Amino acid sequence: MIGALEPVRWSDPPGAIDVLDQTRLPGSEARLRLESVEQVVEAIRSLRVRGAPAIGIAAAMGLALEAAKRTSLEPPAFERALADAYAALVVARPTAVNLRWALDRLMRVARAQSSRPPGVIACKLWGEATGILEEDRAMSRRIGEHGLELVPDGARVLTHCNAGALATGGLGTALAPIYVAAGSGRRVEVYATETRPLLQGSRLTTWELARAGVPVTLLVDSAAAWLLRSGGVDLVLVGADRIAANGDVANKVGTYGLALLARAHGIPFYVAAPTSTVDLATLDGAGIEIEERDADEVRRGFGRATAPPDVPVYAPAFDVTPAHLVSALITDVGVLRAPYAEAIGAALERKGERESERIVGGTRLRADGTGTSEDGMMR
Amino acid sequence: MIGALEPVRWSDPPGAIDVLDQTRLPGSEARLRLESVEQVVEAIRSLRVRGAPAIGIAAAMGLALEAAKRTSLEPPAFERALADAYAALVVARPTAVNLRWALDRLMRVARAQSSRPPGVIACKLWGEATGILEEDRAMSRRIGEHGLELVPDGARVLTHCNAGALATGGLGTALAPIYVAAGSGRRVEVYATETRPLLQGSRLTTWELARAGVPVTLLVDSAAAWLLRSGGVDLVLVGADRIAANGDVANKVGTYGLALLARAHGIPFYVAAPTSTVDLATLDGAGIEIEERDADEVRRGFGRATAPPDVPVYAPAFDVTPAHLVSALITDVGVLRAPYAEAIGAALERKGERESERIVGGTRLRADGTGTSEDGMMR
Repeated sequence: MIGALEPVRWSDPPGAIDVLDQTRLPGSEARLRLESVEQVVEAIRSLRVRGAPAIGIAAAMGLALEAAKRTSLEPPAFERALADAYAALVVARPTAVNLRWALDRLMRVARAQSSRPPGVIACKLWGEATGILEEDRAMSRRIGEHGLELVPDGARVLTHCNAGALATGGLGTALAPIYVAAGSGRRVEVYATETRPLLQGSRLTTWELARAGVPVTLLVDSAAAWLLRSGGVDLVLVGADRIAANGDVANKVGTYGLALLARAHGIPFYVAAPTSTVDLATLDGAGIEIEERDADEVRRGFGRATAPPDVPVYAPAFDVTPAHLVSALITDVGVLRAPYAEAIGAALERKGERESERIVGGTRLRADGTGTSEDGMMR
Repeated sequence: MIGALEPVRWSDPPGAIDVLDQTRLPGSEARLRLESVEQVVEAIRSLRVRGAPAIGIAAAMGLALEAAKRTSLEPPAFERALADAYAALVVARPTAVNLRWALDRLMRVARAQSSRPPGVIACKLWGEATGILEEDRAMSRRIGEHGLELVPDGARVLTHCNAGALATGGLGTALAPIYVAAGSGRRVEVYATETRPLLQGSRLTTWELARAGVPVTLLVDSAAAWLLRSGGVDLVLVGADRIAANGDVANKVGTYGLALLARAHGIPFYVAAPTSTVDLATLDGAGIEIEERDADEVRRGFGRATAPPDVPVYAPAFDVTPAHLVSALITDVGVLRAPYAEAIGAALERKGERESERIVGGTRLRADGTGTSEDGMMR
């Protein structure tokens, strides 16, 4: 029911990353060829590629691409080139933890193979980045399947920003349960906030839902409270850019306000994210660095001045919703409920066990990128 | 400290209404000449003139202008022309009660003078409309003076939309206490939400505050919750388009959400409005008609498509904040607190007494429009 959007994929013929330029949606479906780390960083920073999972995929591909271009270097120079690429990519956006998670995963592969020639390492990194993309596809489907229980027939769902197919390699995070529900014949209707300043809701969420045939209604961010008050919404469902060990959730600015408003109206507030979004090193929301965006995204975000040119702007890209406002976390390993510190710990442990099992047979599968592991998860 | 913005005034030479076209701010300070009822209705409907008090003034001037143009008609035809103009003007925007209040006030004058020639009636209406403009100036100063006690030195104030000098004949409503505080030497700092879809906050509030030398910071509407959470705000201060007899407040969509968020963070939420905004015929918020705006204001509000062209839009222009979330109403007759039904009744009674006293000496004052009544209020 939803066509493959493939916001990030390898180019054909290979040698570059092929991305859908999301800054040009919904007006134009333009794809870009990214051929260098600099171009990948620019694409992430300017939100041509966006959404925590998709950013992680693009960064991993960028690192693998750099490795592939440097195989003629001596091992020390090759290692330095990789380290430089890592350093440039990891700061492209500070809040999304998947970015660091994906890059660290490639660097671990590189270190484990460090005695082998650059060509071999590059090949392994290419496979690992491809694996992250393919796992992400399976992961978002699992989020959708686990979340299905929370999206009853007839549900009217309010979402914020875009945590859909455009944000991941697959069905999305917040939108995955909606796609799975709609695909299984349930009637489901979405209210999408426009999500100022960059309008991911009006430009992207409405576009991908309409394309998939899911009824969607657009509203300005500040109309959400009145919509909730009017009884128009059964549940709020959003994504996450980082989840702290205690369950505090960093997501697009405006999420925290929606969580408070949902609570005030007695409506459940759900967060959907892969477990890779959990950052156990961050104990709680206070430890999450909040990215500040450029003032001109607010002052002149539509190609014309919408405010005096020099007015100061408060422009956090994200906010943090405390765990106590989250009714449930919908992850690829199941629906987690409070107390979150324990639920998250147990979920990661289960997942870790499954993943160590997979590593045995998984290396081969990842190497050619075509097989299916024992648990049915596409690699 | 604030230059006269005069969003609505008589043209010079007379025969038209001269308005500042607020749809073109902050880029250009263009003024328009409105010469017919149709042009006044268009200017109100398309928000060239906006803000509940300014809409009332413009509508009254429009009716007076029509009367002045029809003085050669026989009395019955003159009366019909007035009734037609009233009918066209009163529906220009359905939520702002000042519109009906101002028009009704002129129609009462016309009825009281109905035995006299059209030329005399037109002259009285011209005087009455001028009186409304001049009273509004005095009224907004009083709101500012009464509200001063709620804006301490160093206050950081969050406001929504534009309830400033651009919305009234004078200092504004929500911004009046800020201007008076700043004018009396207090340090006061304002956070202005941009106020989608028409960006009255980013286009107008920042512009008029900066012009008056008051420090102002702009934020997207959905960043308000995080700003409150971060401890950046001491009070929220907004205007009103209609206040029901029980104190429920209709104002720009987003106001209700801010009231809930202020309550959740223990921050006072104040509404500033002239008593003409109170509609005793509306018992509570449930009786307030909420204007729906055109979907394209959200879908293509910046001269380009920001959403798929056919996506449905939920576009209420206003929402209703229940009285229990309002910490105080700042009016031209004083600061009112809960229980609002009683406080509003008593305030209107005091005001009514003052006004019936004024009518004695006031008629003469209004007739030439230059005098000052006993209470120092400029007519």
